[in-house]
Amino acid sequence: MKPSQIIMAHGSGGLLSQRLIEEYFVRAFAEGEGLWELNDGAVLDLPPGKAVISTDSFVISPLFFPGGDIGKLAVSGTVNDLVACGARPLYLSTAFILEEGFSLDSLGEIVKSMARTAQQAGVKLVTGDTKVVERGSADQVFINTTGIGVIPPGIDYRPGRIKPGDRILVSGTMGDHGLTILAQREGLRFRTPVVSDCAPLHEIGKALQPFGEQIHCMRDPTRGGLATVLNELAAQSRLGMYIDEQKIPVLDAVRGACEMLGMDPLYMANEGKMVIICAPQVSQQVLEVLHKLPVGQNAADIGKVVSQPQGMVLIKTALGTERILAALEGEHVPRIC
Amino acid sequence: MKPSQIIMAHGSGGLLSQRLIEEYFVRAFAEGEGLWELNDGAVLDLPPGKAVISTDSFVISPLFFPGGDIGKLAVSGTVNDLVACGARPLYLSTAFILEEGFSLDSLGEIVKSMARTAQQAGVKLVTGDTKVVERGSADQVFINTTGIGVIPPGIDYRPGRIKPGDRILVSGTMGDHGLTILAQREGLRFRTPVVSDCAPLHEIGKALQPFGEQIHCMRDPTRGGLATVLNELAAQSRLGMYIDEQKIPVLDAVRGACEMLGMDPLYMANEGKMVIICAPQVSQQVLEVLHKLPVGQNAADIGKVVSQPQGMVLIKTALGTERILAALEGEHVPRIC
Repeated sequence: MKPSQIIMAHGSGGLLSQRLIEEYFVRAFAEGEGLWELNDGAVLDLPPGKAVISTDSFVISPLFFPGGDIGKLAVSGTVNDLVACGARPLYLSTAFILEEGFSLDSLGEIVKSMARTAQQAGVKLVTGDTKVVERGSADQVFINTTGIGVIPPGIDYRPGRIKPGDRILVSGTMGDHGLTILAQREGLRFRTPVVSDCAPLHEIGKALQPFGEQIHCMRDPTRGGLATVLNELAAQSRLGMYIDEQKIPVLDAVRGACEMLGMDPLYMANEGKMVIICAPQVSQQVLEVLHKLPVGQNAADIGKVVSQPQGMVLIKTALGTERILAALEGEHVPRIC
Repeated sequence: MKPSQIIMAHGSGGLLSQRLIEEYFVRAFAEGEGLWELNDGAVLDLPPGKAVISTDSFVISPLFFPGGDIGKLAVSGTVNDLVACGARPLYLSTAFILEEGFSLDSLGEIVKSMARTAQQAGVKLVTGDTKVVERGSADQVFINTTGIGVIPPGIDYRPGRIKPGDRILVSGTMGDHGLTILAQREGLRFRTPVVSDCAPLHEIGKALQPFGEQIHCMRDPTRGGLATVLNELAAQSRLGMYIDEQKIPVLDAVRGACEMLGMDPLYMANEGKMVIICAPQVSQQVLEVLHKLPVGQNAADIGKVVSQPQGMVLIKTALGTERILAALEGEHVPRIC
């Protein structure tokens, strides 16, 4: 009889482990690809350019949420980290930690979601690992994805290239993912439903490639949100960031819910957005390119890089006053990704 | 005041996350290396050859055991998977899932152990990730490592290259790791203490490189032990494996303890051993090379590849009879790696 749940023997390395891998992972990830040939590794075919590696583990709760699930998130998150490095995402490895008793149907759904997202993003899931721990030693499923991409010639995105006068763009509305997870967890309902923005941003990477070195830096504002990412970039570039609150796109539903909950959307996680810092001469064109993409429709220019105050983020509020926008301290929304 | 334990805010993506990364990971992994420059990725400098990726999550319990700890294991395990692919291990990413309340002192020890093992194996830990889950949602710490290596020209290790007449070698004694963990967990004590063989096997990879294509396949017999690996290789090569029980090196202490516990060392996990399948003309030389390495002193020729029975492993017992050695079914020792 086939089990309907994960049992400890699925992690033994023996026959049941093999069957789990064959029935769930190989079938979804590699059908007709001839990959997964080596037991414990996969050979990568890398085009010319600088190879980049990025890793992330995903522990989000709940596993399924409006707009996505842990599988879609696990693929999107690592794809987006590679895009932020300027790389074309190519390959992913994936490693599962499964809790004894976890539903095999849910695992199947998650794996299919990963396969679908990977196909959409043009990345191949080439190797994996499965571990099982006793009931109570993990919370259902944790997924690690590690991505390999290649930076095409002429691309160089890093904080060291940010200059005073650069424009600060965001590719869309802020806070959707964080608020969706929070609302889902607390059982909150809003008149206009909120949906996570969870999505792979390979198209942004591709669309901005022609701007070459005019794009100075990119980063995805996940945990800690826009405020934290801008503070990191300010610290790493030893420059200041000056942004205009009124120009930051936030959905009405998200703004309203945040006000109700006493949360700030600028600290809320995003899983399908990019912060882009570019030379002022190209900022308008970059925006136009972003607006043509489904994932960039609400892109906006929210401010500029300044030489002073070093390492800080200033925000011009709706009232016209200026205040310091600090990095996230303490804890915000746990297990958001 | 600095916390002595992991708190939820260490996973927020905010200031406390940054401090954790800087104080524990960057300091141990990248001192003076100039790595960890990109926030969410690292650029890799890859020599010519075929790039290989391998991933593993480690959930071993207990975290510290005679002969190693989860950190040493997490580096060794992925290094050994790359070596088994014929690759020279070069880079590792590492991702931590930490349970709220986990001791920062223990984390520090684990991270130092990883750094030490990586240095020994000549691999660089170049990028990472940290997530925190609530008390009770994980068991202390889980670590993923994903490795990148490059297969030098002339090396091609895979089951498809195994031929009838090939010799089957093991690089040392079988079952040390599995028995050590089991004994530690059950509080068993033996007259001769047993110690895990946990070690990176980069030296084996390097030493066997000059044999080029005469080495047909390599695999590390971890979960499921030698019996399971030989069954996998038999199935994948569509050949048979014929081994001689009396030639398989097993430490007296391990054999005795296994007998007492009703366990078979051939199903026990190893974390510092390799199964090597090579052309018969070079097997004696390969053994000589292995014997010169500290990790290969007890290497032995344990049998040969046969054309029949396909997909099966036969073992000649100490009594001179023959029996089928099946792959591991069901569960053996949970959370062994």
